[in-house]
Amino acid sequence: MSRFSEPLPESMKAVRLYAFDGKPESIRVEDAPVERPGPGQVTIRVAAAPINPSDLMFLRGRYGLTKPIPAIPGFEGAGIVVSAGPDLYGRWLLGKRVACGTDPEGGGTWAQYLTTSTRLCMPLPRRLSDEEGAMAMANPVTAIALLQEAKERGHRAGVHTAAAGALGRILFRIASKAGFPIIHVVRREEQVRLLKELGDEIVLNATSPDFLETLKEESQRLGATIAFDPIGGESTGQLVDALPTGSQIIVYGALSLDDARVDPKKLIFDSKQIEGFWFPEWAKKKGMWRLISCARKAMKGIGVDWTTEIAERVPLDQVREAMVRYEDDMTRGKVLILPSPSRH
Amino acid sequence: MSRFSEPLPESMKAVRLYAFDGKPESIRVEDAPVERPGPGQVTIRVAAAPINPSDLMFLRGRYGLTKPIPAIPGFEGAGIVVSAGPDLYGRWLLGKRVACGTDPEGGGTWAQYLTTSTRLCMPLPRRLSDEEGAMAMANPVTAIALLQEAKERGHRAGVHTAAAGALGRILFRIASKAGFPIIHVVRREEQVRLLKELGDEIVLNATSPDFLETLKEESQRLGATIAFDPIGGESTGQLVDALPTGSQIIVYGALSLDDARVDPKKLIFDSKQIEGFWFPEWAKKKGMWRLISCARKAMKGIGVDWTTEIAERVPLDQVREAMVRYEDDMTRGKVLILPSPSRH
Repeated sequence: MSRFSEPLPESMKAVRLYAFDGKPESIRVEDAPVERPGPGQVTIRVAAAPINPSDLMFLRGRYGLTKPIPAIPGFEGAGIVVSAGPDLYGRWLLGKRVACGTDPEGGGTWAQYLTTSTRLCMPLPRRLSDEEGAMAMANPVTAIALLQEAKERGHRAGVHTAAAGALGRILFRIASKAGFPIIHVVRREEQVRLLKELGDEIVLNATSPDFLETLKEESQRLGATIAFDPIGGESTGQLVDALPTGSQIIVYGALSLDDARVDPKKLIFDSKQIEGFWFPEWAKKKGMWRLISCARKAMKGIGVDWTTEIAERVPLDQVREAMVRYEDDMTRGKVLILPSPSRH
Repeated sequence: MSRFSEPLPESMKAVRLYAFDGKPESIRVEDAPVERPGPGQVTIRVAAAPINPSDLMFLRGRYGLTKPIPAIPGFEGAGIVVSAGPDLYGRWLLGKRVACGTDPEGGGTWAQYLTTSTRLCMPLPRRLSDEEGAMAMANPVTAIALLQEAKERGHRAGVHTAAAGALGRILFRIASKAGFPIIHVVRREEQVRLLKELGDEIVLNATSPDFLETLKEESQRLGATIAFDPIGGESTGQLVDALPTGSQIIVYGALSLDDARVDPKKLIFDSKQIEGFWFPEWAKKKGMWRLISCARKAMKGIGVDWTTEIAERVPLDQVREAMVRYEDDMTRGKVLILPSPSRH
C-alpha cells in the first residue's frame, strides 16, 4: 500500500435513493457501506459535488440510466484519492486531488466516498480548488462538445436556449472566444443584463412579445442553422419555427419536463431536423482521446475563460432542501454539496 | 402549328382559391383564363386529377408553397397535350396523353386546362388509363423515394403509420416485393384485414390497447430503425418512443393537423432523430435523373405492383362536397376530379 493511502472506513454518510419518482421521501441521507476499489478503480474522499439538471432527471427516473436501489446520486465531483486498486495509474493517483465522473453501474458523488474507474479521474491542477474541480466534468465538457459539433458540421452560427445557466455561461464565453456567433436566449430581463456583462453577444428574452420575430430575423441574418436546446416543450418548437431552412435542432435536456411540440410542416417543407445529444454517448462515438482532450480543455478554461457562480454550499444532510431551492432558480448559481470538506 | 394542336379557348372552368384558410367559401368554381404555353411549356386538356392530402394542406395554407390568389389547386393529373411552346420536346408531346405535375408558380390540375413545364410531363403508356395516369406522380414516386432512402441509409426494416391510404398501399406492395420488411400501422380492424389481403406483412392497429407494446417488440425484433410518418401529433411521439435506439423518424405529412409531441429524453438518451421529407426537395437534391427514374418506376408499377382504389369521380363543380367526403375517410379510396373527361 502506498504511503498516501489511508484505511477506508466500513461505512459512510451518503444520499440514497429508494425510488426513481422524484418524491422527497424517496431520498434519504443515511449510512452506507464504503466500496473497496477493484482493478482499474480508485476510492475518492469526496470534497465537493454539484447538483446538476441531470441529477434532477436521474432522481425522477427521466435520465438515460438508472441504478440498482438504493442508488447514490451525483454524476461528478472532486476530492482526494485515498485508496487504489492494483493498477499503476491508480496507485499514481493516490493522494492526488482529482475531478471525477462516475461509473454507470457504480456509486455516486453525493456521498463521503466514491469508488470509480481511474479513467474517469483527472488530476486537478494546483490552481483549481476542489469546488472548481467538482464542476469540471458535466457542464464544461458538454459546452465544449456542443461547440465542436457545431463547427465540425459546418455551421457558422447557432442559438442556445438556456443561456443564463451554468452551461450557458460557459458556452457564451468559449463561443465568443472562438469567434462563433451564438444567439443566447434567456427568460428574464436581469439575465439579459447579466450576460451582456460577459461579452458583446446577442441576448434575447424569450418572454418578450417580439421574441419569435427577433429570433427569426437574427438567425436569418447570422445564418444560425444550429440550435442547442436543453428545455424541450415549447422551446424546441420555437426553434424549429424560427431558424432558417435546413437547420438542425440539438435537444440535450428536458428542463421544461414537457414534450417537445413541433409543427410537422416546418420539418417537411423547411428541411429541418431534430436530434438528441447526450455527452456520454457522444464521447463513446468520438473515442477516448477526444474525451480526454475535452476534459483538458475544461480544466484549462475554468477560472480563465469562465467562472461558475456558486449560490450555496450545503452538507450532505441538507441535500433535499437545497435541491428544491436549486430547481426553483437554477440561474442564481450552482448548489454544491460538501460531503467531506477539505481545506483546499 | 402541329396537326395535333387544337385552338385553345380563351376561358375555361376551374376551381379557384381566394384565401388559404381552408374555408369552403374561399373555394369557387368559375371561369378563368386559359394560359398560353411559353417556351418549355405545354398546355394539357385535363382529363382527371385526384384530391391528395397535399391539396388539403395547400388549401389551408399549410403546404410548402402558396400561389398568387386566385390560385388553381391540384398538383397532379393526366390529360392530352393540346398546345405547345416552340421547343422540340413540347412539340413532340403534342397530341400525346401525359401524366403531369405542376409548376410551383403556375396553374393547377383542378381545371379544364393546365399549362405546365414539359419536364413535368411524362407520356402515358397505352396500357394506362387517364385516371391511372392522374395518380402516377404524387403517391407512387413518394413511396418509391421513401423506400430508396431507407435502403440507401442502411436500414433493414421500417414502420409506416398510414398504411391504409393510397401511398400506404403502394409502399406495402413495393416494400414487400423488394423484401424490405415494414410494420404497417392502421387505425381500424377492417383495414388490418384489407392489408392482410395485399400480402403477408405485419399490420398493427394503432387503436388497440397493446399497440405501443407490440410496436416496441416488433420493431426491436425486425430491427426497424426507420419510420415514415405522415400523421404528426401523437403518432410521431409514439414512434420516437417505441423504435430501437438510434432510429430515424421521417415526417412527410401532417394528417392529424396537430403538432408532433415528442419526449425529449427519448431523443437524448436513445439517440433518435426526427426530420422532414418533401418529395420536391428530395428530387431537387437527388437530381433530374433520379426523378425520371422514380417516375418511370411509378409508371411501370401502376396496375402491376399496385392498383389504387377510386372511391368516386366528380365533375369540377362538385369539388367542395367531394373534398369533405374525402377528408372524412381517406382510406376508402381516391376521389378523382374529371374536368374534361376523355374517352380513354
